[in-house]
Amino acid sequence: MKAYQELSTEELLALKQELEKEFEDVKGKGLKLDMSRGKPAKAQLDLSNGMMDVLNSSSDMVCEAGVDCRNYGVLDGIPEARKLLADMSEVPEKNILIYGNSSLSIMFDTVARSMTQGVMGSTPWSKLDKVKFLCPVPGYDRHFAVTEYFGIEMVNVPMLPTGPDMDIVEKLVAEDESIKGIWCVPKYQNPMGISFSDETVRRFANLKPAAKDFRIFWDNAYSIHHLYEDDQDVILELLTECEKAGNPDMVYKFISTSKVSFPGSGIAALAASEANLEEAKKYMFYQTIGHDKLNQLRHVRFFKNLDGMREHMKKHADILRPKFEAVLNVLEEELGGLGIGSWSRPKGGYFISFDAMEGCAKDIVAKAKEAGLVMTGAGATFPYGKDPKDSNIRIAPSFPTPEELAVAAQIFVLSVKLVSVNKLLEG
Amino acid sequence: MKAYQELSTEELLALKQELEKEFEDVKGKGLKLDMSRGKPAKAQLDLSNGMMDVLNSSSDMVCEAGVDCRNYGVLDGIPEARKLLADMSEVPEKNILIYGNSSLSIMFDTVARSMTQGVMGSTPWSKLDKVKFLCPVPGYDRHFAVTEYFGIEMVNVPMLPTGPDMDIVEKLVAEDESIKGIWCVPKYQNPMGISFSDETVRRFANLKPAAKDFRIFWDNAYSIHHLYEDDQDVILELLTECEKAGNPDMVYKFISTSKVSFPGSGIAALAASEANLEEAKKYMFYQTIGHDKLNQLRHVRFFKNLDGMREHMKKHADILRPKFEAVLNVLEEELGGLGIGSWSRPKGGYFISFDAMEGCAKDIVAKAKEAGLVMTGAGATFPYGKDPKDSNIRIAPSFPTPEELAVAAQIFVLSVKLVSVNKLLEG
Repeated sequence: MKAYQELSTEELLALKQELEKEFEDVKGKGLKLDMSRGKPAKAQLDLSNGMMDVLNSSSDMVCEAGVDCRNYGVLDGIPEARKLLADMSEVPEKNILIYGNSSLSIMFDTVARSMTQGVMGSTPWSKLDKVKFLCPVPGYDRHFAVTEYFGIEMVNVPMLPTGPDMDIVEKLVAEDESIKGIWCVPKYQNPMGISFSDETVRRFANLKPAAKDFRIFWDNAYSIHHLYEDDQDVILELLTECEKAGNPDMVYKFISTSKVSFPGSGIAALAASEANLEEAKKYMFYQTIGHDKLNQLRHVRFFKNLDGMREHMKKHADILRPKFEAVLNVLEEELGGLGIGSWSRPKGGYFISFDAMEGCAKDIVAKAKEAGLVMTGAGATFPYGKDPKDSNIRIAPSFPTPEELAVAAQIFVLSVKLVSVNKLLEG
Repeated sequence: MKAYQELSTEELLALKQELEKEFEDVKGKGLKLDMSRGKPAKAQLDLSNGMMDVLNSSSDMVCEAGVDCRNYGVLDGIPEARKLLADMSEVPEKNILIYGNSSLSIMFDTVARSMTQGVMGSTPWSKLDKVKFLCPVPGYDRHFAVTEYFGIEMVNVPMLPTGPDMDIVEKLVAEDESIKGIWCVPKYQNPMGISFSDETVRRFANLKPAAKDFRIFWDNAYSIHHLYEDDQDVILELLTECEKAGNPDMVYKFISTSKVSFPGSGIAALAASEANLEEAKKYMFYQTIGHDKLNQLRHVRFFKNLDGMREHMKKHADILRPKFEAVLNVLEEELGGLGIGSWSRPKGGYFISFDAMEGCAKDIVAKAKEAGLVMTGAGATFPYGKDPKDSNIRIAPSFPTPEELAVAAQIFVLSVKLVSVNKLLEG
């Protein structure tokens, strides 16, 4: 195929007519498809159905600490759940604190706590004139939403294939005391799918922030969410690196089982230095008498240990892999060589990141919607929903069935082609 | 029996010797008893074991809204759970918002939200020089802990047999704009066991607070937690009364099933005006993708409806009633007419409130501990842990077995007698 940029105006016009006809045909089918959110499919949920059986009315519901999990008590999580999530987080058990059903809530609470209580004796952020967070872009919309909600100013940092541009990160945190945090998804990053290089992780651990209360918000959402058993990304463990660098308190790591067991009915944890956990636990002490220990017990009895979890994740991968490949194949076949888009080929996680020609993303998403395909809103992967190049689109292939995906991917590439042709004709 | 105050010094000294001997005997037994927290007993937890069976691997886990409860979605709670908790809260479904596993967290989050976001456009409380809460005393220690944690100044208001002293409440909220809230447990109050009179509820609904962002924090923790099927307290529904009075936004009602199903694994809700819920939902939107819908479904399938819940509560009552009566009988038999203590005779809830002679509560709790009986710390029922009269002690009879309770109550009255005799001898 010739790149669209090399086509003459006549060729583009002819192509446009052809594409519009194709588009009207698809539109006429009245489809309803959704590639907007990183939502597990029904088949994935079925994998964990056995978890509903591990606790029943005749179960012994006493945890290793000898506590009846049906009653009050055990603020920081039952020992066996602490062990499981510590292993999942690659930290010792002393560095883990179990929360409720969602890592997003832990992140939210951590920001909320910093706003009203400060961080290890620092001025509460709500008392400061200005608080900023660095936001590697493209990134996760819900991270940006949390900081925006608390009135925290967000500063874009470009993502590179190795992770955030550390030259910029190092410079900014060193010179600006109002920078209190940075959002990161270090593994199979949302949406780019890349994993941070060892050098990037080490540079994170060795940051010299001007603000003593600066923290790295390390959302390891896809730590064991591989697509290829024999081709996995491995990242350095940041807490250990921070300890080596003499910065043990600089990182908060977040994990959950939302995409391992059930979204909304999983368990989640914060991994951090003991000093950080002490502070987090104080907040938790006032916030709750304890999280859902029966659900913790259910998880441990179902997965048994990290190996059990890893085996379970292979089954998720078997369902997800063909979906990713189906979309990637369509992108390759239909858009390869056309010069109107580039995309990631992730080895794990939940997303494919697509970069359209500048100024086209919003129109592509709108076009796809016309034909019944809902994509993540263009701009969503940037703070304030503003993609300066209007180029990035996040593709979430997990929820639709493979059949739906084949159709959805066709609508998507058709929308990309049409909008790109129009753009070139305008230009 | 003669009142202790009427005994001569000789009589008191003789009594003291006798009591000390008795006490040493009990102490020698090396007992370990706990009447400190409102914690359900094992037999009560067993009542809900069937809840572990209503969802199993072959269950249909789709809620009335057609959503798979295993997946993401439904921020404000599945419809059938909203209905159940709306009925429990005596409000229409439009006035209910389901949260996670604990009403304490909802209260904490509501205060936290007011700190950073303000209330319906008001200045965030964290930006104000002074924020105060009224605290009817004696009251619930965890309420006071939350406000103290956020640096909110607490102002004591005496509890009367009809509820908080409304003359004082009306006066203070009308004249002081820094008063932003009041903590209330309107039914079977913690620890007094009394329920607010209709007049009290109406006066609450008709408050004329100086602060537009003043809210009544109405913790209806024991709404269906009766001890006597045929002798229940009934309180007026405050949201309706507030609406009638033209103050629909003035109240937040909190409930949970912690002491209905399982503490820590229940479901909880906020009941309030739609405008208030809109604000709460905005916060929730950033905080989580959704709460545990499987646990919501589990509750609805187990209890079916409010009638089912009420039937279930009768079984709790059958377990709790004899325990309350055992303690009350010992108090009556051993302390009746002695003039060294008075106590409540609640018709529901989890506590008996005991008032010792002034200056004796701390010593009584310490004395009981010597003999192996843990009571709620003296002062805990007051803000900052400071009971100005050092008189109130909260008795929680729910957790120990009836046999343990008989012994525990004996240790308690013995401690009361000993400390009182010493006090009278000193005085």
